[in-house]
Amino acid sequence: MPTDTPNEVFLQRWKRTRERIASTGAHGILLGGGSDLAYLTGYEAMPLERITAFAGKLSPPDSKPALIVPALEAARVRPRPSVYSIKSWGDSTDPVEAIAEEIPDSGTVLISDDLWAMHVIGLQRRTPHVTLIPIGEATGGLREIKSPAELDALAEAGSLADRVMAQVQGGEVSLVGRTEVEIADDISGRLLAAGHDTVEFVIVASGPNSASPHHHPGSRVVKAGEIVLFDFGGSFNGYCSDTTRCVYTGPIPDEVRFVYTILAAAQEAAVLEAQPGRSLAEVDLAARSVIGGAGFGDNFIHRTGHGIGVEVHEHPYVTKLNNDPIEIGHAFSIEPGIYFPGKWGMRLEDIVVIEADGARRCNNSDRSLLEV
Amino acid sequence: MPTDTPNEVFLQRWKRTRERIASTGAHGILLGGGSDLAYLTGYEAMPLERITAFAGKLSPPDSKPALIVPALEAARVRPRPSVYSIKSWGDSTDPVEAIAEEIPDSGTVLISDDLWAMHVIGLQRRTPHVTLIPIGEATGGLREIKSPAELDALAEAGSLADRVMAQVQGGEVSLVGRTEVEIADDISGRLLAAGHDTVEFVIVASGPNSASPHHHPGSRVVKAGEIVLFDFGGSFNGYCSDTTRCVYTGPIPDEVRFVYTILAAAQEAAVLEAQPGRSLAEVDLAARSVIGGAGFGDNFIHRTGHGIGVEVHEHPYVTKLNNDPIEIGHAFSIEPGIYFPGKWGMRLEDIVVIEADGARRCNNSDRSLLEV
Repeated sequence: MPTDTPNEVFLQRWKRTRERIASTGAHGILLGGGSDLAYLTGYEAMPLERITAFAGKLSPPDSKPALIVPALEAARVRPRPSVYSIKSWGDSTDPVEAIAEEIPDSGTVLISDDLWAMHVIGLQRRTPHVTLIPIGEATGGLREIKSPAELDALAEAGSLADRVMAQVQGGEVSLVGRTEVEIADDISGRLLAAGHDTVEFVIVASGPNSASPHHHPGSRVVKAGEIVLFDFGGSFNGYCSDTTRCVYTGPIPDEVRFVYTILAAAQEAAVLEAQPGRSLAEVDLAARSVIGGAGFGDNFIHRTGHGIGVEVHEHPYVTKLNNDPIEIGHAFSIEPGIYFPGKWGMRLEDIVVIEADGARRCNNSDRSLLEV
Repeated sequence: MPTDTPNEVFLQRWKRTRERIASTGAHGILLGGGSDLAYLTGYEAMPLERITAFAGKLSPPDSKPALIVPALEAARVRPRPSVYSIKSWGDSTDPVEAIAEEIPDSGTVLISDDLWAMHVIGLQRRTPHVTLIPIGEATGGLREIKSPAELDALAEAGSLADRVMAQVQGGEVSLVGRTEVEIADDISGRLLAAGHDTVEFVIVASGPNSASPHHHPGSRVVKAGEIVLFDFGGSFNGYCSDTTRCVYTGPIPDEVRFVYTILAAAQEAAVLEAQPGRSLAEVDLAARSVIGGAGFGDNFIHRTGHGIGVEVHEHPYVTKLNNDPIEIGHAFSIEPGIYFPGKWGMRLEDIVVIEADGARRCNNSDRSLLEV
């Protein structure tokens, strides 16, 4: 996040966050570093064992949140007295003490889903009258409703990833005879050349490896006559891209072509379902029922998607269990997959952003299974 | 960790871990990914929001631990039936259910210090008769007693970092007129060229930035006649290096030279104190009392050191509060610092490993403040 973001942006975000906390019946919030803390303060905490925390309460109504930082990192924090007070803790003290002073001493406090256990347990002992609730459970992600500018940033990042995917699909990235890791390095370079600021991840999974959804590119050499799955993304101006396509290194067998037809239909069905007012579970079920109806239900072994923004994976998650409504400003992936362990697998992924009239795709490279 | 590590290594580690759990009076263990899980299984879990867990119990005595993985990552796990059973959980289920079945249903369970709050709270609700205790609090780090082979690996990594530090001290890395970030990039390349497999971090802090211990290298151009602090490390064969030295770009003012004398004496005092049988707090106090005695106590704003191994920061921590005894096989940094906010700062850091007759230094580049 640019450090010159005006205070007004953070004050607005804290105002909306307060409203959101209040709507859950909670009395305060505690974030232990990470993207939510950066979203509310502009400060990127170091992800080490010394906790940086953001603590705020609803009462009194004009109470200002505190940014609680390790003493040795205090010099890295930009003072923004209108937004937060700064409090530092030293290595000879327990940070739980500093934190406990800045949250309500009774009632409910929403905490980061990934706050460390040592701090959770420490706070439970120190503030026995406070109930700690993971924020994702209480109210989803703080950052899940994006502004129109954020949605445009996601679309722009998506178009950069599409450019690289078009190079793969167009045969500009040579595959047969190279190892997965060589191809992944090549793609990393292309993601940066296309304009991304960072490469977030690159999956290249060939032949039987394509049946492992989170395959780590390795020393396997790509052969002729097999499927190769590409799933990659980077970030641009702080927002992430993430897209998946498969190609075939030779003539496509009928069986593979048939299964791909089912996959593409499932993805399309889920995108059509992604509209304000429907639930996230309905999107998952739209994809799942097409794949299940064709007899491959047991081969679709993951959720349909995940939210995306300043992190590659964030709220809202598109799962069978998430009955939360889809809202304007949501941004998430739609990425069904069909996998045959030990043989091959395939996945098709676009990021969509939700607008008043439905889902807008941020990825628009060719959605067919191309022969390269 | 190489995937060809024999099962015997993991069986031995689990045996020692069981003894350690038993010695705290606890009944089971739950690790949520990370280096401890890799240490006990050889499996490097993906650090994403889907939990990978290692769960084990002491009773019955022959009970085998479970490696609990997201279904879509199950294909990445190498089966080791003599070491652990594999259990997968799907995106349409709550992983807390799968985990709860693999831990004791009453008594005390040690959990990773950094287990996510959503899983801690989920387990507390699901298994109300179990008390969860952060493992660091109960028994320090699982990996904190290193084998002689591990200590040698740390010494080897240290010597690679020393090679780069000698280049800095010898004037081979040009400083004046370049930005911190340019110099940091240069050093990253040299860390790899020296033989590291990865670069873990590079701090280059010049002039007033040296007063910020965790300064992130930026666009500041190094000038003549100022201090420049270098703190960097990488990993080699899975073990990390970490060392800090300062240089001066021109004649060294008397005041700076004097303060550096105090710093070097404090570091030496702490290294001499680092012997089996003494406590970690005594090492911290040895450095702190030299610096405090010279009148700079308020300018030493962090702990004296941190453990190191497969992670740059791990147990044991060398703080005023840690009264645990120093043991043969410990490995940690000794890195006092003296900082004058807005002006300049300095730090001197070596990794030491503890052997029967005291501390062996893994870093041996020149410990003086050199003019470059």
